Parts: sequence; structure tokens; C-alpha cells
Amino acid sequence: MFDFTKMFAANLPAASGKWSGLAKYNFTGGNNDAPQIPLDDLVTAASNVLRREGRNLAVYNLGTGPQGYVPLRDFIAGKLKRDAGMSCDRDNILVVSGSLQALDLVNALLTDKGDVVIVEQETYQGTLTRLAQRGVRAIGVPLDNDGMRMDALASTLADLRSANVKPKFIYTIPTVQNPTATILTQQRRLEMLRLADEYGVPIVEDDCYADLIWDRQRPPALYASSKSDNVIHIGSFSKSIAPALRVGYIVANWTVLSRLLALKNDGGTGALEQMILAEYCINHFADHVEQLTRGLKVKLDCLTAALSESFGTSAEFEASKGGIFLWVKLPDGVDAMKLSQSASKAGVAINPGPEWSTNASFSKSRLRLCFAHPAPDDIRRGVRTLAEVCRNEFGIPQVIANVAG
Amino acid sequence: MFDFTKMFAANLPAASGKWSGLAKYNFTGGNNDAPQIPLDDLVTAASNVLRREGRNLAVYNLGTGPQGYVPLRDFIAGKLKRDAGMSCDRDNILVVSGSLQALDLVNALLTDKGDVVIVEQETYQGTLTRLAQRGVRAIGVPLDNDGMRMDALASTLADLRSANVKPKFIYTIPTVQNPTATILTQQRRLEMLRLADEYGVPIVEDDCYADLIWDRQRPPALYASSKSDNVIHIGSFSKSIAPALRVGYIVANWTVLSRLLALKNDGGTGALEQMILAEYCINHFADHVEQLTRGLKVKLDCLTAALSESFGTSAEFEASKGGIFLWVKLPDGVDAMKLSQSASKAGVAINPGPEWSTNASFSKSRLRLCFAHPAPDDIRRGVRTLAEVCRNEFGIPQVIANVAG
Repeated sequence: MFDFTKMFAANLPAASGKWSGLAKYNFTGGNNDAPQIPLDDLVTAASNVLRREGRNLAVYNLGTGPQGYVPLRDFIAGKLKRDAGMSCDRDNILVVSGSLQALDLVNALLTDKGDVVIVEQETYQGTLTRLAQRGVRAIGVPLDNDGMRMDALASTLADLRSANVKPKFIYTIPTVQNPTATILTQQRRLEMLRLADEYGVPIVEDDCYADLIWDRQRPPALYASSKSDNVIHIGSFSKSIAPALRVGYIVANWTVLSRLLALKNDGGTGALEQMILAEYCINHFADHVEQLTRGLKVKLDCLTAALSESFGTSAEFEASKGGIFLWVKLPDGVDAMKLSQSASKAGVAINPGPEWSTNASFSKSRLRLCFAHPAPDDIRRGVRTLAEVCRNEFGIPQVIANVAG
Repeated sequence: MFDFTKMFAANLPAASGKWSGLAKYNFTGGNNDAPQIPLDDLVTAASNVLRREGRNLAVYNLGTGPQGYVPLRDFIAGKLKRDAGMSCDRDNILVVSGSLQALDLVNALLTDKGDVVIVEQETYQGTLTRLAQRGVRAIGVPLDNDGMRMDALASTLADLRSANVKPKFIYTIPTVQNPTATILTQQRRLEMLRLADEYGVPIVEDDCYADLIWDRQRPPALYASSKSDNVIHIGSFSKSIAPALRVGYIVANWTVLSRLLALKNDGGTGALEQMILAEYCINHFADHVEQLTRGLKVKLDCLTAALSESFGTSAEFEASKGGIFLWVKLPDGVDAMKLSQSASKAGVAINPGPEWSTNASFSKSRLRLCFAHPAPDDIRRGVRTLAEVCRNEFGIPQVIANVAG
């Protein structure tokens, strides 16, 4: 038999394991609430748009160019104007195959091996993994309840300048930050933009959870407030509609977009997904997101109640301002990496903090719990199981009841 | 204004231009016959599969793992068994976002900068571009009417061995070769497999046009005849259903697939496209392809008649055995790169030979004409316009009539 391993390129990532199914109690992944998938309206959208424009599928990119389906780009421009105060049009928008492709494209555009990028100290695992694979160093800036701390960003930028290091960009998830679910205040946004200008460092704004905010209030996007056009904005429909759809977008000026387009040599993003999504969103997006968000808040309340019941005061958390995850602090004795492994054996999947942070000690006893997908009963059972595993492993919580710690 | 260019990575591809629309007479691109897009059946498929399984969209990869939608993989396995003699099952198959992603993944798996890959001398431009971008050298092996010449492959392999160079793989489009539309004979397939074993070089088999054969006869895939499991097989639905859909697949053993999966960190291929495609294909693929192929053959006949009428004996070509393109030789005085530029100004888009070949002099007067998308009248008018441009530029054909040369 031929041995392919002799032919492998250098520095490949480790092999994937065979798919073993989702955990019984799955608190990981950007999954969403299955009952809220709008089946009837998606069917209607698919039927209408296919009958009207389906013959265009015979041409790459529907014959309208590689930036994406025009009605989808127009919808995105309108939504960003209304929700995020952004002034952009279809020509500023590149539709991509999920915001992961957006990250890949932006990283390819701006980074070489050995470069430095500034991130929130706790941030999206996928970003950290991708930067590491490119040989790019991620420097974390601590957060508090109002998002990235601007005093810490200022001193990080100053320290790097002293060391003669120019970071390639500041990667931030300002609106429902992943994993802390904080929202960067408007005052801090303006300060981040000022610092970015002062140090000549652009900002990559990942706004992919920004549609899911409990009180529907959000500050304008960094992109909207920039005076120097130094922001690349990323968004997604994975969280607002469905993650198995792979449709995201990048908003940027033409200097940036023309290069991203050259890097995006994939024959276009799936047109059927774009067409059905656009047709659906034009008619239903705002109503859908409002209803979805209400349902997600109910699930968050279910999760926090379950945590209080099973972990008592051992589980500390700030109320999420939106999104699909809760960032939880357990007592210092808990090693979240170990907890994650033991919990997995008991059928509970969690994201251990160190995988979502540049600070191993700070994140050691923290974890991210995604609550959008499991049914309420599974949230309760899963948290109870997690507490039992944690007690067996670390003696915490001492008693599983909502009064003990 | 912030100057992003200061932040760009090294060695970026050139910026893309703004989209300026398709040429009036467009003989480029893997586009298909718009009237043959099966709208009603796609609408029915979308409706049925969404109503039955749409809630699974709430989970990444529909909750069934990153290799792709299971019914689609099962369909592919059955189709490859029936049409290409391949023995594989869902576990050997990775669904990807078009065969371009397949090429990217395979290149990432097997090549580093400075490596050498063997290709057919005339081959897919996207492959040549991608290899060049990776700093991989493509060495072309000449073809004749039966596909890649095995005597030439043998001497290429021997020469490389003498030079102490081990090519990373043989990239071949054996079945409806792009751009020559030849089909590699079974005898040559067995010889290619023997040479590959002898020299310890694997084969990457790109079979993405293999569904579109006029007489529906094809030899078994190389993958099917390999005794040493040294073939990675690539396929696509872009040509058989629609190119704006981005769904292709890779068939390989688990040693290869487990690494490709690790490289494919894109959150999965669009599920809506996979679901609708699978639902459609399970019920209609064979009938659809038979009808599509009949229609494409009519268009090819229209193109060859138009060429004879406008170019006379100046346009030489072998009858395509299938597919969507014709590889045409004009007299030696014609510079296809220049012709392409002048034709473009006259509203005619063609693929000049040198962009589809590793041999600049051999391909200088050759061009690829895609015939699947333009309507018959546009094929005739476009070819006539091309002949006029060619006569103005090169004095060929001397007279635009089917008797002159």
C-alpha cells in the first residue's frame, strides 16, 4: 500500500479523529436553537427565489461577480446602517463562506510569520488557533465588564512601540464579546479608534454576535465611528439564522477589498445559500432576530438558574448582555482543562477557559458554556452532571445545592 | 486616511479589478446551460428536505460531523460505484466547497515551496495558478487524442529521478481532460498506475467533468483500478448541476482524509447547498445528466459548425468527447494572448492557450472555447466576431467563409 505520509508537507496540523457524535449535553460550539429555525419561511424563500432567479445558477457567482449575491449585499448594507450606524454600500461588501473565511482572508492579507496581533485576552478560540498556525503571536489585552480595557490597550501599544514592534492589527469582538459576552462601551470605542490612529494600527472588528442583544441596544460599530477608515468589519449569519449555513461578510474600503477578492480564489460563496438567505432576510430578518433573542434570553436564564442550583456560589459569572454563551469562573482549585476531559467522559462538552485565552493562569478555572442549542431540560441535567464531575474531581461544589459553595 | 498597504503581507496576489460584467459573447468559465437548470425539481427538493431536516441547520455541519451531509456522501458513493467503478463509502468521502477547495486542500497536504508536481502539458488554469502561488513547479507531460502520453510520462519520471527530484504527485484530469476534452484510455490508466507505483509517486485524479460524456462510456476511474491505494480522487457537482453551487468532494483513504479534515477548518461546507443537492440528486441525477449531456452535444455541434463557417480550415480541433469546452488550434501566426485582448474589446471572451499550458510555444496559437452557456445564436455571432477580430489582427482567416483558410 502506498504510504502517503512520506509525501506530506511540513508542519501539517495533527490528523483529525473520526467523528464520534455530539456530546449528550453539548455546551460547546456556536450552535443555535433548533425550534427557532424558520422552516416555513425558508421553504417559501427558497421556492420564490429559485423560481425567479434559479437559472442564474448556471453561471459562476450567478453572473454578477465575485463579491456576492447583489440583493444579499444590499440587505447587509441596509441592516448595518440601521443596526450598527454604518455607512456602506454593496461595493464595500464581500460575502464570504462564514466569518471563519473572513478571518482567513484578513490574516492572509495582513500577516506574515513572526508578526504580532493584539487581541482581547479572552477571545475566540478559532482566532487564536489560526494565528498560531500562521506563526503570528497574539498579545492579549485584559477585559472588564465594559469590554477591552483601554488603559491596558494603551500600555500594550506603548510597550510594543518601545520594543520596536508594530502590531499588524487589533482584533476585537466589541459587541457581545466571545467568550465574555460584554459590550464595549461607546466611550471605549472612541478611545480604541483614537489609539489605533495614534499608533497607526488598524482594527479588525468581528461583530458576528452583534445581532443577539437582550435589550436590542448597541453602540455604533467601530467601523461606523472611524474617521480614518482604519477598520475592517466582519459579520455573519451563522448566529442570527443558522450556523450550518456558511454565509458571512467583510466590509472594507476598496484598497482592502480588492486584495481580499484576489485572495478569495474559491469560485465564489455558495449561491443557493446566498439567494435563499437574502430572500428570507429581506422579508423576515428583523422579526426573526427579535423572537430568537427573546428565546435565547430564556435559555440563558435557565442556564444561570441551573448553575446556581448545582454549583451554588462556586460558579461566578456576570450576566451576558447577549449571545449564546456564558463565561463562568469556578474556584481557583478547579483546572478547567481537566474538568473538560472528565466532563466529556460523562457526556458533557464544555469549552475550557485556557483554549479561549492568551492568559493561562487567569483562564485556568474558567469555562465557556454555550446555551443556545440544548433544550432546557438538557441544560439542567447537563449542568447537574457537570457539577457532579467537578465535585468528584475537585471537591467543588462541596454540596450540590443552591446554598453551598 | 489610514494606509492599509503599509500593513500588507508579503507576496500578495495583485489586486482584483472591479467587476465589469460578463462579456457579451462569453466563451470562458465553467458555466452551464441556463435552460437546463432543473428549477421545479430543485424547488421540490428544497421544500422536502427543509421541512424534513431543516431544524438540523441549527447545528454546525447539521450535527453529523465535518465530512459532509450523510445522504450526499451516500449518493456520491453510489454514483461513483455505478459510473466510475469505484469502491468507496461515506467514510472515504469529504464534501468540500467546490473542487477548487479540493485542490487547495490537496496542495496544502502534499506540497511545500520548491516542490515539483507533474501535470498534463495542457491543463486547468486554476491548478497552474495555485501551484505557482505556492512556489511549486508544474512539469507538463504532452497529450495526444488518448490523453496524457505514457511514453512522455515515463521519460519525465526518469528524468526527474536522474536529477534526484521526487515529484509530489501526478495531477491528471483523465476523463474529459481540461482543456483538450480527451479521455485517457484504460490501457494508459493502467500504465499510469504502474508508473506511479514504480516511482512511488501518488496520483491526484480530478474527475470533475467526467459526468458529461457524449456516449456515456468511460473507463473506470484511476482510483478504481489502483492496487496500492495511491490515488486521491476529486469530483464536483459544478458541471453536472450548476457552478454557482459550491459542492465538490474528495475520495481518499483515512490517512489522507484525516489530514485533509484537519486542514479544512472552515466550519463545514454550506449545509443548505448540500441538503438540496442531495435531495435532488437522489431522485433525478442520472436522468438530468443524460438530458444535459444531449443538450451540450447540440451546443458543441453548433460551435464546431460556427467555427467551420467563420474560420474555415484555419480552425483545427479534435471532436471533444464530452464536457463544455473545445480546444482549438489556429494557424501559427496567431498569438492567442493578443487575440484574447483584442477579442475582449469586441465583446468576446476566450481562454488563450498559454494560460492553460506549461508550454508557451505549443499553446501560443491555441485557445479554449466554452460552449455550454451562450445561446446558439450567441455562439454563432460570437465566433463570427472572433473571426473578424482575428482577421483584422492577424490576417487569418483570409476570408470569412467555410471554404477559405
